[in-house]
Amino acid sequence: MEARIWTSEVGDHVGDSVRLAGWLHRFRRLSNVSFLILRDARGLAQAVVEDEAVVERVGRLHHESAIQLTGTVVANPAAPGGVEISGPRVEVLSEAVAPMPFDLFRPTVQAPLPTLLDHAPLALRHPRQRALFTLSAVSMRVFRATLDTLGFTEIQTPKIVGSATEGGANVFTLDYMGRPAYLSQSPQLYKQLMVGVFERVYEVGPAFRAEPHDTPRHLNEFVSLDVEVGFIRDHRDVMVVLARVLRAMVEAIRSEAPEAVRLLAIEAKLPRIPEVVPAVTFREALALIGEDMGQDLSNEHDLALVHERWLGEWALREHGSDVVFVTGYPAATKPFYTYPDPAEPTYTNSFDLIFRGVELVSGGQRLHRHEDYVRAFAARGMNAGPFEGFLEAFRHGMPPHGGFAIGLERWVAQLVNAPNVRETTLFPRDLNRLAP
Amino acid sequence: MEARIWTSEVGDHVGDSVRLAGWLHRFRRLSNVSFLILRDARGLAQAVVEDEAVVERVGRLHHESAIQLTGTVVANPAAPGGVEISGPRVEVLSEAVAPMPFDLFRPTVQAPLPTLLDHAPLALRHPRQRALFTLSAVSMRVFRATLDTLGFTEIQTPKIVGSATEGGANVFTLDYMGRPAYLSQSPQLYKQLMVGVFERVYEVGPAFRAEPHDTPRHLNEFVSLDVEVGFIRDHRDVMVVLARVLRAMVEAIRSEAPEAVRLLAIEAKLPRIPEVVPAVTFREALALIGEDMGQDLSNEHDLALVHERWLGEWALREHGSDVVFVTGYPAATKPFYTYPDPAEPTYTNSFDLIFRGVELVSGGQRLHRHEDYVRAFAARGMNAGPFEGFLEAFRHGMPPHGGFAIGLERWVAQLVNAPNVRETTLFPRDLNRLAP
Repeated sequence: MEARIWTSEVGDHVGDSVRLAGWLHRFRRLSNVSFLILRDARGLAQAVVEDEAVVERVGRLHHESAIQLTGTVVANPAAPGGVEISGPRVEVLSEAVAPMPFDLFRPTVQAPLPTLLDHAPLALRHPRQRALFTLSAVSMRVFRATLDTLGFTEIQTPKIVGSATEGGANVFTLDYMGRPAYLSQSPQLYKQLMVGVFERVYEVGPAFRAEPHDTPRHLNEFVSLDVEVGFIRDHRDVMVVLARVLRAMVEAIRSEAPEAVRLLAIEAKLPRIPEVVPAVTFREALALIGEDMGQDLSNEHDLALVHERWLGEWALREHGSDVVFVTGYPAATKPFYTYPDPAEPTYTNSFDLIFRGVELVSGGQRLHRHEDYVRAFAARGMNAGPFEGFLEAFRHGMPPHGGFAIGLERWVAQLVNAPNVRETTLFPRDLNRLAP
Repeated sequence: MEARIWTSEVGDHVGDSVRLAGWLHRFRRLSNVSFLILRDARGLAQAVVEDEAVVERVGRLHHESAIQLTGTVVANPAAPGGVEISGPRVEVLSEAVAPMPFDLFRPTVQAPLPTLLDHAPLALRHPRQRALFTLSAVSMRVFRATLDTLGFTEIQTPKIVGSATEGGANVFTLDYMGRPAYLSQSPQLYKQLMVGVFERVYEVGPAFRAEPHDTPRHLNEFVSLDVEVGFIRDHRDVMVVLARVLRAMVEAIRSEAPEAVRLLAIEAKLPRIPEVVPAVTFREALALIGEDMGQDLSNEHDLALVHERWLGEWALREHGSDVVFVTGYPAATKPFYTYPDPAEPTYTNSFDLIFRGVELVSGGQRLHRHEDYVRAFAARGMNAGPFEGFLEAFRHGMPPHGGFAIGLERWVAQLVNAPNVRETTLFPRDLNRLAP
């Protein structure tokens, strides 16, 4: 039997007899010839069917039946990609037993987002939908590969935890064999502890937030790309790592996923991340925005969505950059582990990365001395007790360190300008959605 | 300032002034000279201190203080690795404020396992403990890289799920904003659905089992290396992928993690995985074991631990292999999605991989037709309702497919012959342990 090839390889086999396997993407019966489009994991291939028996048999199949076809590759300038399969034999591997709820052969799936999510296992088969998750896969691979070359080590930390690290409001509670436990809101403290072990660590894994908000930006479970690095001078060393990782991710999407880029029509829109990413302090940002908007923003404690959007436009206009760092947020808006600005301790050695006007990454330098944690807990009226297992490590020489976290789904959503982060989430979890 | 180098690079810098950063691993004061051992993420370096002021200052530091030292590399055949740092200047980056609960500078940590786990963030700093998780990191990287070359795509599926896929007994229940939800016991059905999208997929992520058993083999949260592949003939195609992945993991550990291999003294003990892994059917295995033990095992429905151990020894003795496949388990012992053996439907197209006498991997071919799922649920008296969101995809041409899952912690435990899987788990979760 012929070795199976991918649809993407058909063009290299003109004159050969080949075997393809995949799904019956489309079947078009014309008066004297019919076209069978087979879809596999790499793309589409067209077969020309003239044999009446084959036409009759395939014509009775529902779309999406899993099939295998064998035939000869012939060049045909009129065919998609300039080649097609002639005189195919078709074997049905697994017959579809119902019509699809929507067509997969149109340029986009003609159904509203809730329908797509209800039928996600089917909608994801559409080449354009699938391409979104090719971008996710490439992004994860290059995130890791870039950090590997910088001497980082991958870790996997527990998602069932005994205490809530990011504050108690939006944490999921669990029955842990009779005791309460929580789902990890982030691997924050674990990755910090692991700086004491490997100095530079990363983790790709789920993070959970019991968000009661039903907005296009919030998910109750998301994939977090986490980094932590030790022996830094301050948060600026962390920003250098982040910029390098993001640049590598964009370059890899361009070079390793050209078909996904083409399907999503984002080639001309891939983000520009300059060698030196523009950075403004929180207070500079408020002054710039306030001046432009004719408002006094100097008493603001955080950036509003509209302010982030303004900064995105400003960075593009003034610096030709799709990303901009905002540094030095007020301590009051940042978690307890954030390192204060030594020169002005009501501000912090923190940063956000704004990607096309939306906050994509948060990061910064962290406290590294035990006494600073004790003070931070006291200042916030927090009970240090549940954290004692973590805090012990800070008695024993934790070096200055910092890190960041990128939300994978939000990254891809911004890459393709998706209005709702659910579009770039494989099986989203939200206020109303627990299945599929 | 000198560029910082890793301890592993000191040997390349004889005669140079270098800067190192890391932890005060040990300080030994002798009568006229003292030795400072610095540990970083790559290893150890020795500095010779003669300056009395430096000796006094370093002598007052607790071990594990984070330090930076600058000095000249000199060759000294008597020093570890043949080089040492002479006349170091020492800067304290973060002073340890308490003595360690155990010494990290001895060949192994002298403390029982519960103490190590209670103080995991500190115990993991020991080079030998740390080396275990270098093996984990290399294993994950090569698992992914091998599958990438075979055309697989990485996926991340939700860990909060609306229904329990592996049976309801050992599932964690969650308060999902007023509704019950569950923690994923495995990505089983999701990875199957994704075969319809990408044909070949893998996932590295947490899996959760509410195990009420306190044994050296059970964890309540573990890292699962999951694979699923479509368009297979039967389970044997899946076994080929598994053997290839495992061989690549062993080779990478040998070639990419020589220091971890040396510290753990496993070089001579790295597993032998032959090109063709020995395989016996479940019934052949029972016959072989029964004959040797002088028992009639022909009515057994599963392999006991002692039987798996026997098979491990048999595979090594008869085939020079540390791994052996057992195929064709009875349908009654396997989950509902297992594909029956077409020739004898009370048995299945399933396999376990026994690694040194312990089950490491389970896998097999899965049902791919909707009607077969309906029948399987009915035969087991299970309610298909909660699975309807999944089952829809099986109406629409799911090709023959199968896969497997490797438990990461168990893999490393068997590699180093650890008697308890908690030793190779970063922060284990069990009946009694939720922290750190």
